[in-house]
Amino acid sequence: MNTSQSIPVSLRWVGEADGQLDILDQTLLPGRLEWIAARDVDTVVEAIKSLRVRGAPAIGIAGAYGLAVAAGEAVRAGLAPDAARAHVLARGETLATARPTAVNLRWAVERCVAIVDRLSLVTPAEGIAEALLAEARAIHSEDRGLCAAIGTHGLAILPEGNILTHCNTGALATGGAGTALAVIAAAWDSGRRFTVFADETRPLFQGSRLTAWELVQRGIPVTVLCDSAAGHLMASGQVAAVIVGADRITACGDTANKIGTYSLAVLAAAHDIPFFVAAPSSTFDTSIDDGSEIPIEERSAAEVLAPLGVQAAPAGAAAFNPAFDVTPARLIHGIVTEKGVIAPVTRDTIRAMLSGQAGT
Amino acid sequence: MNTSQSIPVSLRWVGEADGQLDILDQTLLPGRLEWIAARDVDTVVEAIKSLRVRGAPAIGIAGAYGLAVAAGEAVRAGLAPDAARAHVLARGETLATARPTAVNLRWAVERCVAIVDRLSLVTPAEGIAEALLAEARAIHSEDRGLCAAIGTHGLAILPEGNILTHCNTGALATGGAGTALAVIAAAWDSGRRFTVFADETRPLFQGSRLTAWELVQRGIPVTVLCDSAAGHLMASGQVAAVIVGADRITACGDTANKIGTYSLAVLAAAHDIPFFVAAPSSTFDTSIDDGSEIPIEERSAAEVLAPLGVQAAPAGAAAFNPAFDVTPARLIHGIVTEKGVIAPVTRDTIRAMLSGQAGT
Repeated sequence: MNTSQSIPVSLRWVGEADGQLDILDQTLLPGRLEWIAARDVDTVVEAIKSLRVRGAPAIGIAGAYGLAVAAGEAVRAGLAPDAARAHVLARGETLATARPTAVNLRWAVERCVAIVDRLSLVTPAEGIAEALLAEARAIHSEDRGLCAAIGTHGLAILPEGNILTHCNTGALATGGAGTALAVIAAAWDSGRRFTVFADETRPLFQGSRLTAWELVQRGIPVTVLCDSAAGHLMASGQVAAVIVGADRITACGDTANKIGTYSLAVLAAAHDIPFFVAAPSSTFDTSIDDGSEIPIEERSAAEVLAPLGVQAAPAGAAAFNPAFDVTPARLIHGIVTEKGVIAPVTRDTIRAMLSGQAGT
Repeated sequence: MNTSQSIPVSLRWVGEADGQLDILDQTLLPGRLEWIAARDVDTVVEAIKSLRVRGAPAIGIAGAYGLAVAAGEAVRAGLAPDAARAHVLARGETLATARPTAVNLRWAVERCVAIVDRLSLVTPAEGIAEALLAEARAIHSEDRGLCAAIGTHGLAILPEGNILTHCNTGALATGGAGTALAVIAAAWDSGRRFTVFADETRPLFQGSRLTAWELVQRGIPVTVLCDSAAGHLMASGQVAAVIVGADRITACGDTANKIGTYSLAVLAAAHDIPFFVAAPSSTFDTSIDDGSEIPIEERSAAEVLAPLGVQAAPAGAAAFNPAFDVTPARLIHGIVTEKGVIAPVTRDTIRAMLSGQAGT
């Protein structure tokens, strides 16, 4: 079955090395489909910080293209080779730190920086731009393949029945079909029939705004629920499995993902419902052993106190707004990567999969 | 310490038996403070169904006053004694079924109906109206006392430290200082210092709109969080106890309360955090043994898909919107009533407390 025409795209490069990065403004979905034309790095950084582009793999791809944008700035400014190189590297650091929790962003930026490092020191700005665009395109293209492989591997372990997911892990969050949503789509495309329960995912409603939108486009039945209703839903016996994405996974398997993921994992365990994570191997940060070392981004109080821009709370109320939480490895039944499924989740099984010495 | 001047009122009767019920429209809080003047039962029923008045005890009081409003209709229509009585009883049934989950509504209406039953059959409409207003005022006044007693009993079992609560259980939800919020206020008034973490409580944001508003007015520090962040908050070690209200408690202690309560209870258990329920004894429905028999109100999809009236989800997405869930007795460390604290929560301890043969 071919469903590719209904898979949305969140990032596209227009033109050659002197071109621009078009970013679909996801904050306006599903009401409006508008693109931001980024010809300077500040626009890319703002889009990342404001979650116009979001989802760990998509942020990584945006960061990679962002370096190509930085090289374009150098070309238009007429910078000499050494100044162009310095400019690109400085902008790379700004891009890499635009959001602190997802590791894919730094991974992608560092991969592009390594390309610059391999170029001759006399390479002109145009040459740097061409090399960086080629690398960004490669990262983007590779991500499509990773998503497809995650879908295939995940299908093998996903039970039949209705699936509960959180946040958005689809085409909008990646360069391809998604991570957790790619697994769900693969199950649907294989002929299984079920409903996807999509947590609305406060504070930014990525579940109702983005996941529901993607699933409606793909023709997969979707039912949105308030995050707080997940426990009641599980207790009602309507959920066969939970599958979510990841922003960073440590060496021991502790997983940072959208706030609310940890609560879901605890609830799934209390109801004997299998809980899966789907993410490309670039999401692993084996420099960190456990979840206590993952920096958790705190975002603005307004996201909590003024949902969708409408003030809900009185003056004088404070807000607690962590963007992510950490789910300990013991609550995760399996991690689906492009290389295969890591299950059980232990330091050894993770190390073996990442080094290519394991398979499903 | 006297904080009564800062405690809001959600219901007030204006005039004598030919008067009206003023209902504070809680759907407009905290932005606007507007009163609805109810001189007909349809207005009262609409206010209950639309959650302009909400909170199990407050709904009960509104139902009681609603019968006085029905008698006022009979007076103004010039109904003869038998027709007036029939009118009041028929409107009573409409009031009692305006919302299905909370038991206080039917309890209060039936208490008022019993007053009518005790009146002579030749009692004119004016006499029925006077008797019903007196009974409604008694129920309202008694609830103030129940709230105060719940606060006092709850203080004895609430640990020191920050408290997490859900939905609104304060003055707006009752005829007095509240249930769970009365316990919190009693702790504050006793000199303890802490922060109240208030779940925003999707879909209708009673936590951010109402609980935060009441606490700001009382000068108690409040931090609002998305419901999905409660697990992360508990894992961070910042929560000493969870306390919530109740809409119906069965003979075995299973408790229906605002959607999300059950998830909180599971999470509290996973973090060894005590979980308490505070409710007047009229919340018990001992005609029901366990939670599986409690009817769970399903509300409109729009509450989920269009938060605060802003469309978030695409056309084609369905919604799951139970207004309540059921927390099993085994997850509840104690139930605070006006008679004392029921702990542990078992059929025997509940029966003993309700029959007045136990105390704290």
